[in-house]
Amino acid sequence: MRFASRMECLQDKALLNAMELTETEDMISFSAGFPSSETYPVADIKEAFVQVLDHEGEEALSYCSTSGFGKLRELIAKRMYDKFGLDYKTGEVVITSGSQQALDMSSMLFINKGDVVLFETPSYLGAVNALKAYEAELVALPTDREGLILDSLKQALDQYGDRVKLIYVIPDFQNPTGRSWSAERRKQFVDFIADYDIPVIEDAAYSELSFEDKLEKPLSYYDKKGQVVYVGTFSKTFCPGLRVAWLCAKEQLMEKFLILKNAADLSSSAIAQRQMAYYLSHYDLDAHIKKITSLYLERRNLMMEVIDREFPKEVGYVIPKGGLFIWLELPEGKDSRELLKRALAEKVAFIPGGSFYPSGVKNNELRLNFSNMKGEEIIKGMTILGHLTREYLAE
Amino acid sequence: MRFASRMECLQDKALLNAMELTETEDMISFSAGFPSSETYPVADIKEAFVQVLDHEGEEALSYCSTSGFGKLRELIAKRMYDKFGLDYKTGEVVITSGSQQALDMSSMLFINKGDVVLFETPSYLGAVNALKAYEAELVALPTDREGLILDSLKQALDQYGDRVKLIYVIPDFQNPTGRSWSAERRKQFVDFIADYDIPVIEDAAYSELSFEDKLEKPLSYYDKKGQVVYVGTFSKTFCPGLRVAWLCAKEQLMEKFLILKNAADLSSSAIAQRQMAYYLSHYDLDAHIKKITSLYLERRNLMMEVIDREFPKEVGYVIPKGGLFIWLELPEGKDSRELLKRALAEKVAFIPGGSFYPSGVKNNELRLNFSNMKGEEIIKGMTILGHLTREYLAE
Repeated sequence: MRFASRMECLQDKALLNAMELTETEDMISFSAGFPSSETYPVADIKEAFVQVLDHEGEEALSYCSTSGFGKLRELIAKRMYDKFGLDYKTGEVVITSGSQQALDMSSMLFINKGDVVLFETPSYLGAVNALKAYEAELVALPTDREGLILDSLKQALDQYGDRVKLIYVIPDFQNPTGRSWSAERRKQFVDFIADYDIPVIEDAAYSELSFEDKLEKPLSYYDKKGQVVYVGTFSKTFCPGLRVAWLCAKEQLMEKFLILKNAADLSSSAIAQRQMAYYLSHYDLDAHIKKITSLYLERRNLMMEVIDREFPKEVGYVIPKGGLFIWLELPEGKDSRELLKRALAEKVAFIPGGSFYPSGVKNNELRLNFSNMKGEEIIKGMTILGHLTREYLAE
Repeated sequence: MRFASRMECLQDKALLNAMELTETEDMISFSAGFPSSETYPVADIKEAFVQVLDHEGEEALSYCSTSGFGKLRELIAKRMYDKFGLDYKTGEVVITSGSQQALDMSSMLFINKGDVVLFETPSYLGAVNALKAYEAELVALPTDREGLILDSLKQALDQYGDRVKLIYVIPDFQNPTGRSWSAERRKQFVDFIADYDIPVIEDAAYSELSFEDKLEKPLSYYDKKGQVVYVGTFSKTFCPGLRVAWLCAKEQLMEKFLILKNAADLSSSAIAQRQMAYYLSHYDLDAHIKKITSLYLERRNLMMEVIDREFPKEVGYVIPKGGLFIWLELPEGKDSRELLKRALAEKVAFIPGGSFYPSGVKNNELRLNFSNMKGEEIIKGMTILGHLTREYLAE
């Protein structure tokens, strides 16, 4: 049978495998970017489902409109204004089935085969997959500790010119590195890119998972042109099993996104959206986020402690100030895939860094998730990994 | 801003509008293909949600694997075997977010820009949209009362040759005509197409909504080559608000579908899938389907009665033996869009037939949904529509 040419671009199953590794019961897995499931407010969610089914059961089990449940979109718009100063109207919010779908729709809207997408590197595998499915040419841009390096961005824009159709970035607690852009760099980036007619996808999946009280202003906050498309989700701050996320764009763009959402799956689940709206109206999501970020901070600290104690000093890292990930750098010439092979034999999993490079490959890094494993598992798994790393680097 | 070229193909908002028309409170709408929401077993579904959250809450709120919840896939495979004799293994079933997503994934897998897709005509708008989003060239094939006309199929295959990448059909209670293929035509079609290396999407959205006891065997039942991809859904037999549907394909194809599902939205909602699995295990879906098909049969009969009484005799129809739709044909030269304009002014909605022609247009037909409106609304709305039709045809 003959397949579309896109299938040749989509051979990378790293993300699929990451999920599968984590599903093995006896594995200590630092692979997947999952929140900690024991934090899910199961009883409150149950109550919300019961209330929704008792009072609006028929509507909750029917098709929802393509843009999503109005009340939820309104609550999200308000919440983004309160938290980040973002000024989106309800009509500028569309509910998506996870933020992955928002990335898929963004690729679909902007990308023809062979178009260039500029990417922070390393970056999120799911976005890489979504873009590869539309046969984008992914061009990696280097970052420093402040964010995307603007000189490199300018150079890429000069080099690829009109072929550049999209820029994809994660300014907060980036996946996989855990790093955030500085406020200064955000402003500079938006100022700079305003001279180009190129849309920017701002993936804000981790933005609220800060270990500090202050949240950075999103790129969208500085955007006066309607050039930035903002993607948010409840998967990391609440729970991923509902598949409720959102995409914000100014009116003209939103019209097009709705056509694509309709073609993709008609609409997202009405009951999941109504449950979420009920929860946001009757419970305190911010208190919940405070609870989970405290837990993740503890786990991050524990992981850093074991790294400092058990890992060789040549292993580099930046301490993340939020999010779900720690990014380790082995000395040049070492390969984290080799380390993974040995770790799996001892029932410890992580994702080798090479998977996060959309083009070109750098193999001496690795991503560790610290949100999803309990304290004792972090100590045990990281101690094993430390010993294995020590052995491997000594070879 | 510059958009992908696909956006030029996707101007048809008929389906979006159909949903919006139905949302107007005082409209008697025969537009959308919705099940009757008062039939949803709200209390049983609530109980299922409560049980799932009480006993497997953390798992239900976590990410699901890309292929879907194993238990649900197993139950679906068994159900399809019991009902239709279909022999799919659990591993050959992937859960999708509504059958629209299965159509999107199928387009994605097989279609490059400009590839030809053969279509029954008229046909389902959502499939048209999914295929247009990948810039397929849609070639309409005529049908008769037995199903797709094989001579026309052969002619199209001769004419378009290697450019034909996919065939899309709805053999049972087709949307929009309500017609079903005969058993004989099904066998002939599968025999015939087995000589070609072209995949067939069998959309079985309405297959179980039969007003007779016997269910026809699907095309997949006759398929020995693994050429037919079967798409099923709970949206019409149960409720659409959960967005739980499925796609079946033989192993080699399934591998590719999973890569695309992963790129599209990672996975479908874990809680919706577990709720569905609980319902299937603890309640009697067949009894529920029997209940709703009895109701739909009553409503179909009522609608036919009003048509026979109030509509001019020149209006043609075939009495549907299942599904959700009646298809009316006005005399040649008349335009159902004109009729719709007048109907909307009197708060009655339907979908003009032209919307269901992927290429070329025939404007003298219309689709009426009979499942979604209560008896008195059917009488009132159809009486108004009958008078308007009489007036219009007399001009």
